Amino acid sequence: MAAEHFSPGGPVVLLTDFGVADPYVGVMHGVLASLAPSVRVIDLTHGVPAQDVRLAARFLASSRTYFPRGSIFVAVVDPGVGSARAIVAACDEGRLYLAPDNGLVAPSVGTGASVRRVEHSRFALAKVSATFHGRDVFCPLAARLANGELRFEDVGPETKIFERVSFPAPVRTARGLRGVVEFADRFGNLITNVEPGELDGELRSWRAKVAGRSLEWVTTYAEAREGVPSLLVNSYGLLEIAVAGGSAERILCAGAGSVVEFER
Amino acid sequence: MAAEHFSPGGPVVLLTDFGVADPYVGVMHGVLASLAPSVRVIDLTHGVPAQDVRLAARFLASSRTYFPRGSIFVAVVDPGVGSARAIVAACDEGRLYLAPDNGLVAPSVGTGASVRRVEHSRFALAKVSATFHGRDVFCPLAARLANGELRFEDVGPETKIFERVSFPAPVRTARGLRGVVEFADRFGNLITNVEPGELDGELRSWRAKVAGRSLEWVTTYAEAREGVPSLLVNSYGLLEIAVAGGSAERILCAGAGSVVEFER
Amino acid sequence: MAAEHFSPGGPVVLLTDFGVADPYVGVMHGVLASLAPSVRVIDLTHGVPAQDVRLAARFLASSRTYFPRGSIFVAVVDPGVGSARAIVAACDEGRLYLAPDNGLVAPSVGTGASVRRVEHSRFALAKVSATFHGRDVFCPLAARLANGELRFEDVGPETKIFERVSFPAPVRTARGLRGVVEFADRFGNLITNVEPGELDGELRSWRAKVAGRSLEWVTTYAEAREGVPSLLVNSYGLLEIAVAGGSAERILCAGAGSVVEFER
Repeated sequence: MAAEHFSPGGPVVLLTDFGVADPYVGVMHGVLASLAPSVRVIDLTHGVPAQDVRLAARFLASSRTYFPRGSIFVAVVDPGVGSARAIVAACDEGRLYLAPDNGLVAPSVGTGASVRRVEHSRFALAKVSATFHGRDVFCPLAARLANGELRFEDVGPETKIFERVSFPAPVRTARGLRGVVEFADRFGNLITNVEPGELDGELRSWRAKVAGRSLEWVTTYAEAREGVPSLLVNSYGLLEIAVAGGSAERILCAGAGSVVEFER
Repeated sequence: MAAEHFSPGGPVVLLTDFGVADPYVGVMHGVLASLAPSVRVIDLTHGVPAQDVRLAARFLASSRTYFPRGSIFVAVVDPGVGSARAIVAACDEGRLYLAPDNGLVAPSVGTGASVRRVEHSRFALAKVSATFHGRDVFCPLAARLANGELRFEDVGPETKIFERVSFPAPVRTARGLRGVVEFADRFGNLITNVEPGELDGELRSWRAKVAGRSLEWVTTYAEAREGVPSLLVNSYGLLEIAVAGGSAERILCAGAGSVVEFER
Repeated sequence: MAAEHFSPGGPVVLLTDFGVADPYVGVMHGVLASLAPSVRVIDLTHGVPAQDVRLAARFLASSRTYFPRGSIFVAVVDPGVGSARAIVAACDEGRLYLAPDNGLVAPSVGTGASVRRVEHSRFALAKVSATFHGRDVFCPLAARLANGELRFEDVGPETKIFERVSFPAPVRTARGLRGVVEFADRFGNLITNVEPGELDGELRSWRAKVAGRSLEWVTTYAEAREGVPSLLVNSYGLLEIAVAGGSAERILCAGAGSVVEFER
């Protein structure tokens, strides 16, 4: 495998669990504006539930291809901040990912990705706090990479050993497949871990149930009948449970962890 | 009427009901950064209550003049996503509006506006999901218009038939006027559908009541007496009920739909 | 003291209590894009609790140094909007601050700062509402300063009389020090008003309690034992109470105003 080269030129893209009520995210923008004033910064989202590395990994993996090559993702969901946990930089398909070595990046990069363990003390602000490496380490690092001051090859040694998270895979059952709700979105839609390709044959030949309720296959939200729990392929490429004109989360009393059964 | 010509050069302005906890909005920014990297993007708000087309229309109509000519508004509150509902592009006073054909844009454009039915399959991403046209259709379209790659005249045929929403008008009563609270803002201020011009003569000659409580006319929040429900002309140019040092919404137990009576 | 000169070139940085559900913040961006189209705008945060000038002052003071010289901070937490309260502009260490004269800016600027009373009617939009000076006054003013159209020296007369807020100082007690929780962040961490320098000698030689619970000193979140209320120096440079894997706010039933006792 040839060592991957990264060419900056795209935006710095921030993904955190910091929320937007505190000034944490704004201060990260400040550091970037200080060190890389001409680089565009985009907020992917800061609404990841606190310390939910797996959901952050899902959000990153399903969003990354919509950003241009040359983008630098700064993904900070970091329960281990201040500990000896490493910081990794991964380059894949012309995009660069910076994250704590807790698995966040793994689902976003292919097996051929080049991954480096960042020697971050060399790139951090002069004073590094024990609790906010997004500001003190990740943004200075991203700024220097985005500027072209620092090359990906120079962030630290290549490594093959880094943490991975895996999304819970659906399970084969005697009569079909058992999936799970991964999260609910703002509309109360329930996003499952099941890709349509895991159900062989016609989707509509499968009966699906969640929380004791049968689901009706539809192609669009608009096709769903008012108040009827429905199932469709969503924009993440996953099966999603929705209720037209309402919140599936509330109407079905279901949410992250709820089991979805598929039978035929 | 001369066909309107649109000159880009302003920002792309996003207005949705997607919230900011999910990565939906961030991904829209990614598509725009990919296809129109030098165009500025502004979030008007993503906090429209889910599928509340009318409030989105109000927000858009009352905000648009604060944006420069050459702005492209992408307004996606879209209960009909994936259905056969059209997408419209409207040009008025040098600003361009893209929205589902559900009435969202109508209050923002004058009767002389040029409105086109977008042939959107020509401008969408290669793969269009059934649930997220903000990402797959609206942003690619906006990017190409903002870039100058695509002219407004070429998005599709002109049309005179498009959906309209109307704001609920205040009603004349035997003794005066009956309005309604349209929404509460973050401060718990209650924004009504009544423009001051609808009350003839001196505003302060009118007695006003909401939820059984009398309201006191003031000119500014600072003039209101602590804890006293007050009525003033707000920054939308509408009558607004506020309580100094508190939330009118909570103190009056009132909100969207509450009736406001004006008598003299 | 030489009169301070301000050189623009940095971003305009917005700090308000407007939240992000309403279009207030988006419209401010619109005004800036209209009047200073090439100037970058950063949202520090809009999640300051409604009218909490003191917390806004804390956020500003602890964030400002992370922004470049040439930044213009627009800090609008403004219970007195529409009243005769003045608007101040302060220049310090190459950064400029615009805020209502309610104390918001004071903790951010040194005693040598140059402070001016803004003659704001000269710089406002043609039509000024009684309720939204962020849009009608502050942003036009910031745009002109950021553009270089208007010099800091020309915004209005220098003044030595302006409002100050002070953060509640910890109090010496017979057996040590009594501090207070200033606010809880998104993670439920409780940020106190105590700087580590106020406890003489080794931090770990002090016993600390909040809400009847003893706190354990740690250096990082990662060092804290699951479920044990812990105390550390945070990224604001303040003592903070955290519970690993949970919310200190919820677990300790504590929040803004809770007393923290230090004894030795």
